[in-house]
Parts: sequence; structure tokens; C-alpha cells
Amino acid sequence: MNNRRIVLASRPAAEATTANFRLETVPTPALAEGQVLVRNHWLSLDPYMRMRMNDMKSYAPPVAVDAVMVGGTAGVVAESRSDAFKAGDTVVGAGGWQEWTVVEAAQKGAWRKVDTARVPLAAYLGAVGMPGVTAWVGLVHFIEPKAGETIVVDAASGAVGGVVGQLAKARGCRAVGLAGGADKCAYVKEELRFDECIDYKAHRDFASLAAALDKAAPNGVDGLFENVGGLILDVVLSRMNAFGRIALCGMIAGYDGAPMPITQPRLLLTQRLRLQGFIVSEHMQLWPQALAELAEGVASGRLKYRETVADGLENAPEAFLGLLKGRNFGKQLVKLA
Amino acid sequence: MNNRRIVLASRPAAEATTANFRLETVPTPALAEGQVLVRNHWLSLDPYMRMRMNDMKSYAPPVAVDAVMVGGTAGVVAESRSDAFKAGDTVVGAGGWQEWTVVEAAQKGAWRKVDTARVPLAAYLGAVGMPGVTAWVGLVHFIEPKAGETIVVDAASGAVGGVVGQLAKARGCRAVGLAGGADKCAYVKEELRFDECIDYKAHRDFASLAAALDKAAPNGVDGLFENVGGLILDVVLSRMNAFGRIALCGMIAGYDGAPMPITQPRLLLTQRLRLQGFIVSEHMQLWPQALAELAEGVASGRLKYRETVADGLENAPEAFLGLLKGRNFGKQLVKLA
Repeated sequence: MNNRRIVLASRPAAEATTANFRLETVPTPALAEGQVLVRNHWLSLDPYMRMRMNDMKSYAPPVAVDAVMVGGTAGVVAESRSDAFKAGDTVVGAGGWQEWTVVEAAQKGAWRKVDTARVPLAAYLGAVGMPGVTAWVGLVHFIEPKAGETIVVDAASGAVGGVVGQLAKARGCRAVGLAGGADKCAYVKEELRFDECIDYKAHRDFASLAAALDKAAPNGVDGLFENVGGLILDVVLSRMNAFGRIALCGMIAGYDGAPMPITQPRLLLTQRLRLQGFIVSEHMQLWPQALAELAEGVASGRLKYRETVADGLENAPEAFLGLLKGRNFGKQLVKLA
Repeated sequence: MNNRRIVLASRPAAEATTANFRLETVPTPALAEGQVLVRNHWLSLDPYMRMRMNDMKSYAPPVAVDAVMVGGTAGVVAESRSDAFKAGDTVVGAGGWQEWTVVEAAQKGAWRKVDTARVPLAAYLGAVGMPGVTAWVGLVHFIEPKAGETIVVDAASGAVGGVVGQLAKARGCRAVGLAGGADKCAYVKEELRFDECIDYKAHRDFASLAAALDKAAPNGVDGLFENVGGLILDVVLSRMNAFGRIALCGMIAGYDGAPMPITQPRLLLTQRLRLQGFIVSEHMQLWPQALAELAEGVASGRLKYRETVADGLENAPEAFLGLLKGRNFGKQLVKLA
């Protein structure tokens, strides 16, 4: 059987391009004892992958040149030589950018069986997966929102941001999003039920964006869930209330190497802010509680999300580059089967 | 009786100058019931005062133009119309830049009696006062040092920084200081017993300062107690280990309005750092524990400190401007009596 996979062909000089990726076809190896063969149905595309393409100091080693791009997948067990899985099991794990993955069943935690009775398989890559848990950990664990507070999140129509605002609303907070374009903002307000959403593309400088934020968050900002960085971070920082909390989850604005300073760090001091950078995979003890709330939200229909689906592995690079530009709407997936 | 006092004559346009201060002589008012008259013997000069001269959003309101400059003082009760204090009591409080202060005795917590049997009166403005407690709270409460970790503090020969390093050493950490000039560095290493001290004046650019830090902190940096900001913060940030903690206590480099960005905030994310801005007066519950350790350290001679003393209230502005330039050595005091 042949496996199609996408490897990192070269490291981006600055902005990533499709030339940095290469599609290969290789035979799937025969299974050894304890191994499982998974047919990946869905590949998750996420901003963190851009950072893994660079050879720089970060929380995870870079993807090696010629190695398969890392990524979360959801699929179905095709063949098993382990008691832990049987053919037909629906599973989620880090399958990478490829159609088939050989899994070492003994690596507990790396792959888990999921129940698709009330939650669609693809949702385990989004609202009930890593992005949803990221939203939960950043908001609940690090921002610690209290009813009545104002919580701001950028990339608000995305897989993480959309969940952050809905969880904040469920905790009695005012949720203010930032998203790119009128369509996304309408979705964030009308479908996700945020209190306000600011179209950052309509506010390209500090004064304009700050004025929009003052209108959307008249009582200032108590919690910021930061996915973007750059100008947005600078503006929200200038509107933080005393004892505000910032969960630093991503800085997508700088992933292509653009300089992206915090211009007024003095505010961190004068407003006695707490800022915490975090990676969701380092807080495994919180996943069960988070997943329980997220699964119940999706199953009941209360927790909304949207997906953008690219069809076929060969379209993954283009979809990924679009994600980095904000061209996706909600969770970006690639349908592999 | 006449009281000499220094008021804020005007707000600094950029760098503060002596023209921003004015010395006045006014009669001390007669005491009302419940009031106490204190003869201030020592005035503490501290960097935070610079921020209070500006009319900007901060944790405390600015000093009004024509109002007495704020400041901690230590002195002796001259006259009392309250049961809480009697003539001859040695006391510490926020007496301001003046020789005499009328105190409302009912304002509990604002002034406290201190015991000068084993701790000199002036030390209650330094190692056993606000600066010492600031060091304790930032290090013990926010950085949470563990034995074997490397703790970096700038302004290391100062009233706060010197205590930070000594408390870190007492907890089994490697203490690395930054100070301006060979004399201060020698004092930090030899008298305060830090493991290393970097003369930042000998390293004016990123590469040079980073190389010096790599030598002084070969295992990277786990905790940063930040008093200065600017280049120093940028360099230390680039050497922080995963899960490092930054206690943001001051940004003296920017108090005159100079731009002072954090150029690589991405590191806060990739190293999963925690940064906390704090003001010691908002953590009163920690003061008793901190003061107990600090007083014992000073009384036993284990906790070292140095003082720079300006003689007479009229010399306070010049001494204060020198403090902002790092011309003091250790705790800057003004002797008022």
C-alpha cells in the first residue's frame, strides 16, 4: 500500500511558500508486533507549525529537512497488531501530514480512541481537541476570568479564539474579539455570540485600533488571550486594567520573522499585569476537565465552531499558507479520506 | 516651629532637573486631637518617585504640582496627641520630602513604631523597609527560586538588588548581578557575595552584554528580578530557560520617557515564561514574614547593605537625580536631622 506524505523540503528564508514543501509517495511498511496502521481522515493545520519550520530555539525541536511535517490527525485504525486498538477504532493523534501513519501502540497518550456518537470525528482536531483545550487552559487556568470582567481574544473566528470567547461568555464575562474582515466579525458576534468584535483590518494604526477597543471594551480589559502579537498586543496592553492577566498562546504576526516588539512594557509594571506564555501539551493534567466541558458543549450544540476544509493532502501547503494569512474561516482542516 | 519641605515645582519635560523642585519654609501647624508631630531624621530616595512626577496612568496618582514630594521617612515623635504614639517613639512612614510631618495616628498601617535596639533607624528605609520587602516579595513570592537555579538581578548594588541576590544565595541559588562600574561590581561580588556581577557599562550592545551573561550564567537564567528594563531586559530574556519567571519591579531605564521596547516578546511564548509586574505595597500580607527575615539578617550582620547619604533636605533633589543616573552606591538616603 502506498502512503502519500508531505515533507519539509527547505526552511523558509522569511515568508513560507509552497516551495518549502514536497509531496512524496512511499510504501507503507509492514506492521511489527505492537504497531497499528491508521488511515488518517483529517489533518489539522495550525499556526504553531510555521514555527517548527524554522531552525530556532523554541519549545519543540524544528522539523528536520526531508522529514514529514508534524500535525494532528484523526482517522480510523485499518490494521492492528496491538491489543490496545482494533480495526475500525476512531482515533486521534499526531499523525503528521500524511495519509497513513504507523503508530507504536505502547506510546500511551500519543494516540487516543474517541467516541463519534455525539461529537464528529473532525471536531477532535478542533473544539474538542488541541485548539479547544488550548483555549480552555489559557482562559480558565491562566487568565482565571471572573464574572463581569472583560476578556479580549484575537484571531477570534479561529479554532482557538472562537472557543475562548464562548467559554468566557459562559463564565459571565464580556467577550471582545478581534478578527480580520466584516464577515468574520459578523460570525463572531452573531453566531459565536461575543459581545463585540473588532475588524482589525479596518484599523491599521495604534490610534484607530485603540479607539475601536475603547468602544468595544468601555471598562478596559481584564484578560487578554493573545494569539497574534504585534500592534494588537500593543493596543490591548495600553487598555489593560490593574491586575490584568495575559495568556500568551501565539504570536502569529511574527512567525515569518517580522520584528514585533512590545513597545510599552512599562505598562506591565504600572498595571501590575501577569503574563504567561504557555504550551497546551505541557498541561496534560488539565485536559480531562477541559475535554469534558468542550465535548459536552459540542454535543449539546451550545459550543459553536466553523471549519474550512481543503480537499486532499496535495492541497495542504496552500491551505496552510492561507491559514497564516488568515484566509481560513474557523478551524482549518485537510480532508484526507 | 518652621518646616522646610520640597515640593514639585513643575513636571519634567523629559529628563528631570533640579528646576522641577522647590524648597519652601512653612510653619508647622498646631496639632489637633489624634495627631502626632514627627521629626523626620531620614528621607528615603527611590526610583519610583520619578514616575510620580509625571502626569500619566500608573499605579499611584501623580504628585500634584506645588504638593510635597512623596517619600518614606524614619524619625522620632516630637509631640503626640494620640494614645498610639508618645514623644520619643522611633517611627517609619510616608513623611514626604520634609523635615516635619503631621501624622493622623488613626491611619493604621501608615506609620509604625520600630525597634532600634538591633537594627539602625535608617535601615528601616532600606534593607528592613520598603526596598528590602520589595526584594523579598519579588524573589520569594513571584520568582519562587529553587536551589540550584540561576537568578539575575540588575541594579544589583542598589537597595533592592543587593537584597535580592543575598536572599537568592541563602536559598541555594546562583546569584548574578548587573551593576554600573567596576567598583559597584567588586562590592556586589566581594561584599554581597554574589557569584558574579556584570558591569553593564562595559557592555553597551546586545552581543557584548549577552556574551558576558553567558559567561556569568552558563546554565541560563531561571529567574530575573528586573529593575531597569531596556537592553538589559532584552539580553536576559534571550537567555531565559524554559519556565523562567520574571518579577518586574522597575524600569528605571525608561522613567525619563525614553522608548524601551521588549524587542523579542516571542521568547516569552517559546520559553513559556511568566512575567509579573508588582508593587510591594499591594502585598501587605507578606510584609511580616519578609520583615522578620530581613531584620534578623541585618541584626545578625549576615545581610549586608551600603548607604549613600546626602546631608540636608536642600540636597535631596541633586541626590535624587544622581540616583536616577546610578551615581548612588547602595541605598540613597537624605539625613534631615
